[in-house]
Amino acid sequence: MVIDNQLKQKNLHLREKLDKIKIVLTDNDGVLTDTGVYFSSKGEEFKRFSIRDGMGIERLRKYAGVETIIITGEESGSVRARAEKLKIKEYYLGVKKKEELLFEIMKKHNLTVSEIAFVGDDSNDVGIMKLVGFKATPSDGMSFIKELADYVCENKGGNGAFREVAELIIAFKNK
Amino acid sequence: MVIDNQLKQKNLHLREKLDKIKIVLTDNDGVLTDTGVYFSSKGEEFKRFSIRDGMGIERLRKYAGVETIIITGEESGSVRARAEKLKIKEYYLGVKKKEELLFEIMKKHNLTVSEIAFVGDDSNDVGIMKLVGFKATPSDGMSFIKELADYVCENKGGNGAFREVAELIIAFKNK
Amino acid sequence: MVIDNQLKQKNLHLREKLDKIKIVLTDNDGVLTDTGVYFSSKGEEFKRFSIRDGMGIERLRKYAGVETIIITGEESGSVRARAEKLKIKEYYLGVKKKEELLFEIMKKHNLTVSEIAFVGDDSNDVGIMKLVGFKATPSDGMSFIKELADYVCENKGGNGAFREVAELIIAFKNK
Amino acid sequence: MVIDNQLKQKNLHLREKLDKIKIVLTDNDGVLTDTGVYFSSKGEEFKRFSIRDGMGIERLRKYAGVETIIITGEESGSVRARAEKLKIKEYYLGVKKKEELLFEIMKKHNLTVSEIAFVGDDSNDVGIMKLVGFKATPSDGMSFIKELADYVCENKGGNGAFREVAELIIAFKNK
Repeated sequence: MVIDNQLKQKNLHLREKLDKIKIVLTDNDGVLTDTGVYFSSKGEEFKRFSIRDGMGIERLRKYAGVETIIITGEESGSVRARAEKLKIKEYYLGVKKKEELLFEIMKKHNLTVSEIAFVGDDSNDVGIMKLVGFKATPSDGMSFIKELADYVCENKGGNGAFREVAELIIAFKNK
Repeated sequence: MVIDNQLKQKNLHLREKLDKIKIVLTDNDGVLTDTGVYFSSKGEEFKRFSIRDGMGIERLRKYAGVETIIITGEESGSVRARAEKLKIKEYYLGVKKKEELLFEIMKKHNLTVSEIAFVGDDSNDVGIMKLVGFKATPSDGMSFIKELADYVCENKGGNGAFREVAELIIAFKNK
Repeated sequence: MVIDNQLKQKNLHLREKLDKIKIVLTDNDGVLTDTGVYFSSKGEEFKRFSIRDGMGIERLRKYAGVETIIITGEESGSVRARAEKLKIKEYYLGVKKKEELLFEIMKKHNLTVSEIAFVGDDSNDVGIMKLVGFKATPSDGMSFIKELADYVCENKGGNGAFREVAELIIAFKNK
Repeated sequence: MVIDNQLKQKNLHLREKLDKIKIVLTDNDGVLTDTGVYFSSKGEEFKRFSIRDGMGIERLRKYAGVETIIITGEESGSVRARAEKLKIKEYYLGVKKKEELLFEIMKKHNLTVSEIAFVGDDSNDVGIMKLVGFKATPSDGMSFIKELADYVCENKGGNGAFREVAELIIAFKNK
């Protein structure tokens, strides 16, 4: 197993928060994608994901025992397809208030807020990000989200940001 | 509701123009997209939009009471699909002279030119941009459009430029 | 009609070559696209073009009386679809030796080499670029093509390079 | 035939390793693509390749007598489509342990490890990269892969990295 020790050394101040994380919630558009959505004249919709981020989800599961849950305000079939490919069993589409769903998830998994991480990038992520134990954003997250975040990634959304968060958690879970 | 106060402070000189805006007209290609158009061997066409820009359109409607109208010279079914997803009721495809359509829209909505904003990026936007009250362009708009614009975005077309214009208007509409 | 006078002033040394151009030949992949080709599991293929480059082709025709001919080594249905959308009547797919086709085109259109421009980016463009009157390449053309070119664009392939060449020709054709 | 002599001069220290290469193995995602994977709402999957990289595979075959074999951990029909277009006869999908497959390939082709090059970018490439004679990575390969590599490309995955490796091998095979 590969551990990114440089990433770990640079972020020792986050140790306490990361130590507690048991589950990662993530927004989709702008985090797992670069905010892009493709439409054809038939209305067919495509979204672009990253294999490298997908590997982050798989490595989180395998090496840290941490599952990833996708929470998105969009009603997007492409997210469903991506989630199934990555064997993500829990994902929520068309979520209006992510902070309300947070409490359902805490109850369902018997978790406290400090055991939950969230990765978001835009205004509908503000509410939930103010509540969770650890919050991160891609390098191209909206400026007001960066101000809220415990960790601003070096990588962009849809291009390694989620992987970076995953490796950070793996690095601190494996001692 | 999130207000981007930094954006507001940096652009206080635009206050007078932005105060008056009641409707936003926007070009599609190069503004809501990165100018890209995808063709398959069957001639099927895709275009890439940004969820973040779409959120700008929704936030403009919700927090500033400002509707967005798309005006494009292209005959593109993908624009129709995108507009419908965003609940945009008014959009015009295949427009040869955007400045002529401007007067129809003014009449229909009972607006003066100073109440209309336009976001454009290329030569077929020159005519209309010379007429409206506030005109903006993405950071990668054509150089002669940048010279015409009241506001040149920090973000590129299809990648947050429209959102930036939307947040600017929202910031000044909410006092 | 918009003339890019800055572009013209910067390139006065090319006046003599550009003055003579009557037709523009262009490679497809890496010039009209960013070299990308999208495959589905069914083998279906997509390519990404730029509306801004397409407008260059239309403006060349309208304001300079110059037609564009696409010459590509690939057998790509997406090029056909793009060419038809842009009303390009002459395009050649699967061309093995572009320099041989050059002579056929010269004969067909009754042109000399100095009346022909070519935009290319890669090794299969070397032969034809050594022959024509004016040759250009995108800013991300291969290094050995840049060495051959009369003009290296500021824009990348599939992202405004062709438009830049078009505006250059239009600027010198209109006095 | 075009030889990139600048590339050759800059990398004379690699001469000994490159001289021996008889076959190139390559990862797909992040090397032949930019890690992107596109999903539709129907679950259909697209990947973006580069014509310029494809030309690298063809030139390797034609000018250096070196075949390229694709080895990927993913089960991706788009790779199959791309491989067939490039007349690649040997490619392996869904490979769990690339280092185990290496030995099968060595046996099949009667090659030693020093005759094999590998291009990879991520954690599942570590094992095989420690074994082969020459290993390279795109400029945006993961940091721990860059530390392992004999050669870090100037170009990114899916955007000329493979072509760069191909030209490097061609330059040294042709004296």
